[in-house]
Amino acid sequence: MIKHLLISFFTVIVVLTLAIAAWVGYRYASFEQLDDNTHLQAKAEYLEHLASSATSVNTAPNILFILYDDMGYGDIGAGETNPDVIATPNIDALAAAGLVLSDFHSPAPVCTPSRAGYLTGRLAPRAGLPDVVFPSGSTKAFISSLLLKSGSPVRLPAEEITVAEVLRAAGYRTGMVGKWHLGDSRPSLPNDLGFEHYYGALYSNDMEPFALYRNRVVEVPAPVDQRYLSERYTEEALAFLRASDERFFLYFAHNFPHDPLHSRDERLGTSDGGLYGDVLEEIDDGVGILVEELRYSGKLDNTLIIITSDNGPWFLGNAGDQRGRKGNTFEGGMRVPFIAHWPAEIPQGRSEPAMAMGIDLLPTVLDILALPAPNDRILDGRSMLPTLTRGAASPHQYLHYYDGETLFAVRDQRFKYRGPAGVFYGTDQMLISGSIPQKEWLFDLQSDPGESYDVSARHPQKLAELRAEFNRKNAEMQSNLRGWTP
Amino acid sequence: MIKHLLISFFTVIVVLTLAIAAWVGYRYASFEQLDDNTHLQAKAEYLEHLASSATSVNTAPNILFILYDDMGYGDIGAGETNPDVIATPNIDALAAAGLVLSDFHSPAPVCTPSRAGYLTGRLAPRAGLPDVVFPSGSTKAFISSLLLKSGSPVRLPAEEITVAEVLRAAGYRTGMVGKWHLGDSRPSLPNDLGFEHYYGALYSNDMEPFALYRNRVVEVPAPVDQRYLSERYTEEALAFLRASDERFFLYFAHNFPHDPLHSRDERLGTSDGGLYGDVLEEIDDGVGILVEELRYSGKLDNTLIIITSDNGPWFLGNAGDQRGRKGNTFEGGMRVPFIAHWPAEIPQGRSEPAMAMGIDLLPTVLDILALPAPNDRILDGRSMLPTLTRGAASPHQYLHYYDGETLFAVRDQRFKYRGPAGVFYGTDQMLISGSIPQKEWLFDLQSDPGESYDVSARHPQKLAELRAEFNRKNAEMQSNLRGWTP
Repeated sequence: MIKHLLISFFTVIVVLTLAIAAWVGYRYASFEQLDDNTHLQAKAEYLEHLASSATSVNTAPNILFILYDDMGYGDIGAGETNPDVIATPNIDALAAAGLVLSDFHSPAPVCTPSRAGYLTGRLAPRAGLPDVVFPSGSTKAFISSLLLKSGSPVRLPAEEITVAEVLRAAGYRTGMVGKWHLGDSRPSLPNDLGFEHYYGALYSNDMEPFALYRNRVVEVPAPVDQRYLSERYTEEALAFLRASDERFFLYFAHNFPHDPLHSRDERLGTSDGGLYGDVLEEIDDGVGILVEELRYSGKLDNTLIIITSDNGPWFLGNAGDQRGRKGNTFEGGMRVPFIAHWPAEIPQGRSEPAMAMGIDLLPTVLDILALPAPNDRILDGRSMLPTLTRGAASPHQYLHYYDGETLFAVRDQRFKYRGPAGVFYGTDQMLISGSIPQKEWLFDLQSDPGESYDVSARHPQKLAELRAEFNRKNAEMQSNLRGWTP
Repeated sequence: MIKHLLISFFTVIVVLTLAIAAWVGYRYASFEQLDDNTHLQAKAEYLEHLASSATSVNTAPNILFILYDDMGYGDIGAGETNPDVIATPNIDALAAAGLVLSDFHSPAPVCTPSRAGYLTGRLAPRAGLPDVVFPSGSTKAFISSLLLKSGSPVRLPAEEITVAEVLRAAGYRTGMVGKWHLGDSRPSLPNDLGFEHYYGALYSNDMEPFALYRNRVVEVPAPVDQRYLSERYTEEALAFLRASDERFFLYFAHNFPHDPLHSRDERLGTSDGGLYGDVLEEIDDGVGILVEELRYSGKLDNTLIIITSDNGPWFLGNAGDQRGRKGNTFEGGMRVPFIAHWPAEIPQGRSEPAMAMGIDLLPTVLDILALPAPNDRILDGRSMLPTLTRGAASPHQYLHYYDGETLFAVRDQRFKYRGPAGVFYGTDQMLISGSIPQKEWLFDLQSDPGESYDVSARHPQKLAELRAEFNRKNAEMQSNLRGWTP
């Protein structure tokens, strides 16, 4: 009897293993991400139209977009709280001579979808890349493919329109230095999506193989010595600026302060913020070098410099007064520092409370250049230009907080609504897990920036309004996830 | 072939199910928590000795110990940050006329072990109850028994000595109102462990059956209407105070603001802190009623009132500037408000920065009464009396942060050290989980109260010192978990 059972048991184990292996092999082998030819065509026509109609470029600014990785709202003085711990005099000077948005949000609480939002002006599910991607062929990619639903995208779809493509069509010299993290295969590499010049890493600095590419070719093979990463990036950014005689757009996406942290040996132990502080202070040195070059070359006055982060802090780093960190849709996961410096157009020394989000970057660029938006798709972002130049109220009635394809929260300028139980999964749910399910909450961010107190009963009308918007948005996304317009 | 496999498969499933059921049945049926007769005997002798030697009682204070459930460091003005959101004038008045410890910690980041620490003066693993317990026979208790190691305790061992037993031996009238959560069977009920009078719930208010006991008998059967819970508790506390002609000790352990939240209908919607605020403001009303009674009866001057919480905030509530919440060993999980009011001995209007922990309560009481500590066991706590009365430095060189039986962190007055990877499990690990393992971190709480920046490289000597203390403590606990002395 025992022997018979053991044989049965091992037979089942073996068969199950073979079945799983076969299924995985099938899925892996058969997976190929397809792009949308209709909208590839529409995109081509749109960019061609921009190229033929771009008349305002001669007065338009250069654009330097500096994106930190996992820097929190409280990490730098411009963000809020810790000016004494980490010294960032160059960023602080830009903030003092420019503008701070105190209520600015990354498009998503993790790397990949956040970057998709910044570059496309669309929420990550719209842009077709809602989840973090991993290096092709890596164990992490394999595990991720098992966890995500079948056919989950592994790169930014080619039919998406990036801010780099828009600016290139408008006659800009376009370059990128740093972390891409929107896929590692054609046609979704930086050079495929608008950047004439690329130098950097395709992934986060905790992923392997971590190599440095110049355009499509590995220049520094993995594993890269990350102690010199920030320095190298700054040198490349500087070289790009120096080589830019015409109007330029540089997207400078640091790999730090994403974990693991590294800085030059000479930097080690110099900051009160520990290694995290060393890393941020070294990056700040680099900001100073780039600003000095722009000043020296006379370009600073008409260069729009934007500095922000892709999401809240991860293991280390400070989210300020906010609740939560990277990976969740509390404010600490998505509210990030935002500094804009553009002497020609942005009056200095202001802090604006208007809420905004990284999806506003592309619409703002279109507004600056007086260019039309594409008409085959919805842009979720709105132009921040009136806010930047003259302190106008937020262009948004509501902001929507997505993690993956799930809507977790909706807010207006004052209140934030989190949806009821049953619609959540992933990191958010883990963070607040326990024996009691997630509840429907309404926070008054004005009196309660830490999202501590549910004021649903106090503000029933606001609750109803934001609940309706939450449901409306869910229905809209369900019926037309990618936001294609007829 | 297919048919044969299906038969094999179902055979294995059935056999495995039967095996698991048998194992569970065996474990459940055979489980009985045994107490330690040697130390039961030593405890009896110790309490007898106290009873015969207690000479100082006539000048000793009454003690009213008010414990909140899941109230955060930032929830009340005395804690720190939100005086304008939640109005607690009665607590604020006690703080103003007494003392605030700004760096006080609960003994553990969750309910049961925290209460074990408060009552015994010992860290929860020492006191033999490191994990949360659930109602006997409930599904949660069943699941918990599967998750915890075999023989995990489900009640405070009877050989533990509680502050109530000490005070009763010293001639006090002892009473408890509110949440027990240290087991629901003899000999570990409130009346077994030093409380002559008990009225309250044996569990958290999200556990079933949630009934109210008077001593050993259910007086209000489950499910209790929790809207009147705080009011009922305050009435019982008031009745106890009024009936106390002699010296008294009252342990008043509110079930709120633990989730789910309830308050009287008339209270609903009155606080800017939403329902959470309504609940705290109702409790504050109750504090005012008790203080008024003490004042009226002339006892206030020589009554030591202590107000604190069992751990940081859970779903709602504010942890102030701290990182983390209930369930983890970041400061937000364990640093809680602490107010002491005792006009006869504590000079008014002070805030003391000396670090302390709930395990200090019993040693402080012994110090006040000039009574000896038991000599068969280690007390982890130290007397806070010199800090309370004259602002002395912390009685601790180090504080140890336990979650379950695991040591997560060690701190001194300025620095906090978190141990390396491999020693963690449970909520803490979940909270910070990701693709990178937990690391060894050193935080400078003075410049970085939010535990954002690892300054290991900046302070190598401190790192070595606290790492040594971390390892020493782990070794000490491994060799003598319960802290019995020869």
